[in-house]
Amino acid sequence: MAEQSTKQLTDVVPVPVQAKSDPRADFRLTPATVIVADRDARQVADYLRGVLRPSTGYLLPVVPFAVTPKIELDVTKTAKVGDQGYQLDVTQRGVTIRANTSDGLFAGVQTLRQLLPASIEAKTVQHTRWVVPGGSITDYPRFAERGAMLDVARHFFNPDQVKLYIDQIAQYKINTLHLHLADDQGWRIEIKSWPNLAKYGGSTAVDGDPGGYYTQAQYKDIVAYAASRHITIVPEIDMPSHTNAALASYAELNCDGVAPPLYTGIDVGFSSLCVNKDITYKFLDDVIGELAAMTPGKYIHIGGDEAHSTSPADYQTFENKVLPIVAKHGKFAEGWNEIAKATALPVTAVPQFWDTDGVDDATAAAAARGNKILMSPANKAYIDQQYTPDSPLGLHWAGYVEVKDAYDWDPATTLAGVTQDSQIAGVEAPLWSETIHNSDEIEYLAFPRLAGIAEIGWSPRSTHDWNSYRERLADQGPRWDAEGIDFYRSPQVDWK
Amino acid sequence: MAEQSTKQLTDVVPVPVQAKSDPRADFRLTPATVIVADRDARQVADYLRGVLRPSTGYLLPVVPFAVTPKIELDVTKTAKVGDQGYQLDVTQRGVTIRANTSDGLFAGVQTLRQLLPASIEAKTVQHTRWVVPGGSITDYPRFAERGAMLDVARHFFNPDQVKLYIDQIAQYKINTLHLHLADDQGWRIEIKSWPNLAKYGGSTAVDGDPGGYYTQAQYKDIVAYAASRHITIVPEIDMPSHTNAALASYAELNCDGVAPPLYTGIDVGFSSLCVNKDITYKFLDDVIGELAAMTPGKYIHIGGDEAHSTSPADYQTFENKVLPIVAKHGKFAEGWNEIAKATALPVTAVPQFWDTDGVDDATAAAAARGNKILMSPANKAYIDQQYTPDSPLGLHWAGYVEVKDAYDWDPATTLAGVTQDSQIAGVEAPLWSETIHNSDEIEYLAFPRLAGIAEIGWSPRSTHDWNSYRERLADQGPRWDAEGIDFYRSPQVDWK
Repeated sequence: MAEQSTKQLTDVVPVPVQAKSDPRADFRLTPATVIVADRDARQVADYLRGVLRPSTGYLLPVVPFAVTPKIELDVTKTAKVGDQGYQLDVTQRGVTIRANTSDGLFAGVQTLRQLLPASIEAKTVQHTRWVVPGGSITDYPRFAERGAMLDVARHFFNPDQVKLYIDQIAQYKINTLHLHLADDQGWRIEIKSWPNLAKYGGSTAVDGDPGGYYTQAQYKDIVAYAASRHITIVPEIDMPSHTNAALASYAELNCDGVAPPLYTGIDVGFSSLCVNKDITYKFLDDVIGELAAMTPGKYIHIGGDEAHSTSPADYQTFENKVLPIVAKHGKFAEGWNEIAKATALPVTAVPQFWDTDGVDDATAAAAARGNKILMSPANKAYIDQQYTPDSPLGLHWAGYVEVKDAYDWDPATTLAGVTQDSQIAGVEAPLWSETIHNSDEIEYLAFPRLAGIAEIGWSPRSTHDWNSYRERLADQGPRWDAEGIDFYRSPQVDWK
Repeated sequence: MAEQSTKQLTDVVPVPVQAKSDPRADFRLTPATVIVADRDARQVADYLRGVLRPSTGYLLPVVPFAVTPKIELDVTKTAKVGDQGYQLDVTQRGVTIRANTSDGLFAGVQTLRQLLPASIEAKTVQHTRWVVPGGSITDYPRFAERGAMLDVARHFFNPDQVKLYIDQIAQYKINTLHLHLADDQGWRIEIKSWPNLAKYGGSTAVDGDPGGYYTQAQYKDIVAYAASRHITIVPEIDMPSHTNAALASYAELNCDGVAPPLYTGIDVGFSSLCVNKDITYKFLDDVIGELAAMTPGKYIHIGGDEAHSTSPADYQTFENKVLPIVAKHGKFAEGWNEIAKATALPVTAVPQFWDTDGVDDATAAAAARGNKILMSPANKAYIDQQYTPDSPLGLHWAGYVEVKDAYDWDPATTLAGVTQDSQIAGVEAPLWSETIHNSDEIEYLAFPRLAGIAEIGWSPRSTHDWNSYRERLADQGPRWDAEGIDFYRSPQVDWK
């Protein structure tokens, strides 16, 4: 630090009332320094220039604030907002967003977008007065994780479709995208040591629709793109059930050594990896190893749901063997809440509660041991469910989930025994893809409901209010129109 | 306000934790807007630019903080600092001074000067690293008025000499210059309705030295110059005594109708305006009227001290007639503490306590009635007194006033009955000029003592500490050297 001052802030006559030194913040006057002053301050600025010029020899031009209206983004020590929050200050001269991290800045940028007219989202030049309301916002999330899940197994979505969804969800301060990469109907990620998984297991989809998979280069590109939107990818390989695509690709993974045919229906729970074969764990070590190596996030999701073809004892055996493989590759495990039954569940593992009845003893017991729970109650947070019986897309096994349903719940009253925010990792909105095939259909199911899940995960419980929310939601309509998002115009909202 | 946003800060999904609107601060994005971001924020800034460009069509360049190191001076709503204080924040990127008024900014600028190396005061280019210590200062004065007085009657100082003194005292947040414009030895201000006052009454000085006076144009120029240094001029016409120059100029002002000769000695108390002549009040109405018309400050100083040739009854009569004349011309009266004896003293009048024994019943009674008292105890604040018996300049009728004496006192324990800061208008350091003739001699008596009086008037009592002060004072030495101030190098200070 060559720029250190030898002075203290109190080396002044008369001594100041209050001074707080920060030696790392010493400022050096240079020939490039300008004096910024508006009309009210101009006279003093000219005086200061007069004082400083003779000895420094610097030009020190006095420039008005008005010549440089600005949006300042500043990663700097920022009180109160933690590692994801931000402070946003708007004056006539500019907007300043301060945060302790670039994640926080990014969240603040999303707020700034929404403070501008909806036409800011247009793809062509609009002739509008781009005014931001004055004042200050201090903002930070209730829960560390606000997630979306995209099922790319039942139907495949190509990298551009995934990136589009990333851009869309980022607007609502979603910071996690869980990719459901493998299920009975398709295996969607290249595994170099088991190449048939993607090549053969990824070749079809529900209803015999075209399949597809991500090469490792494509997956890494998606991970990087998500990171540029401050979103962490959590890759899921569902197991031991939901594995028909893998079992069809490699006969040796089946207990009877016979590969089943590829599957394009929408039943669940019929498939299972062979719990008592060593090859199963060699396979998973390879798969999880390759996934972990190209996933910078700390979590690998190991599924674990609906293992109806696996006995409870075998399920225990299986999870107790898989969980250490995840740890071996330097990751923590996420899994559907069934994994809470594993006796070897480490406290770092995150069960994802997806049930609808608010009771799950194993998950509550895990929470009592210190595991954090991710909340995705299917009758609230599953955004693939139909809005109403008339919805052209979606299933309804968990019920109909209208916009108000997706908003009107509290993660801290969702599961008996999990009542403290500190027990909750966050919220996630899974979007299963049995009935959807393209971005328009993703959008129709995700919007507006994703925004509600995002708000539940971010905003303080004290702000929860349907009437306020539905008005703010109505404002999102023109934004989605400008962005080309084909959202569901729920009659519960007075759209603009 | 055409730039109003139609949005609220809470029109955002997810709703922010905390928002405080300020509709007057709405910000408009324009083609001139820049996005300011350092390396840590660059990625988010580029993203924001990508969001904003398509619809606005603006360039929105992302510029690093570093390209525009700046000193920002901002008259804006600033908490805690009142109408004279300031907030000064120093980071590696710049210095920001905020204040509610330009007076506050100016005070902050004086602090900034002292935070730079002393060579910043040099008159030629210095090759130094101009580093300001990092951190924050919140600062505001203890008392509203911190004054200096210059006696231009006993010896005359020309406008340039007065301006030089203005520049010197401004550095210590002195905000008032009291000009003692008339005394027995000279009348120093042109009065157009009584032209002999200046022309004849101003023609000599103590010891028969050359006299002089300010034309009204010169006086106005001094007032304007002082204002540019955020200093208010308080003009004094001393009366009813200290008036020999006026009495010598106009015979009709004397009770016996005989003009006395001009006086060049240093006695006091021998002269008096004629209390019972109407012409006296016509004269004063004219003088105060012309003075008030060219004095934007709210105070006219009407002297009133040492009226040893005026009976107590006449003094009452006189002051009770003069005080309404000041009010008639839209001003408040300041006067030496003897004016507190006037039964018609308005509560807006400010007696200036100059006595040394800490007791003055009339002044204490005025304070009890609500008058604010200006503190200038002669044995502390009279910076014309000799430092020691060896001082080549100065008198010593109030004692010797070393640097420590001028600093080690408290306005709230100076006069019995005046113990609350709220009873005190401020402090003033009078510099009488019987023994001084030029700027060097002004400087020798004023520095360092003026800095001590300034600190007593500005800084909180809780900061009062001789050892801290003498160290900070030592730092002023090189500044004064650089400025060419011929200060007294008191042995009480370890000068640098």
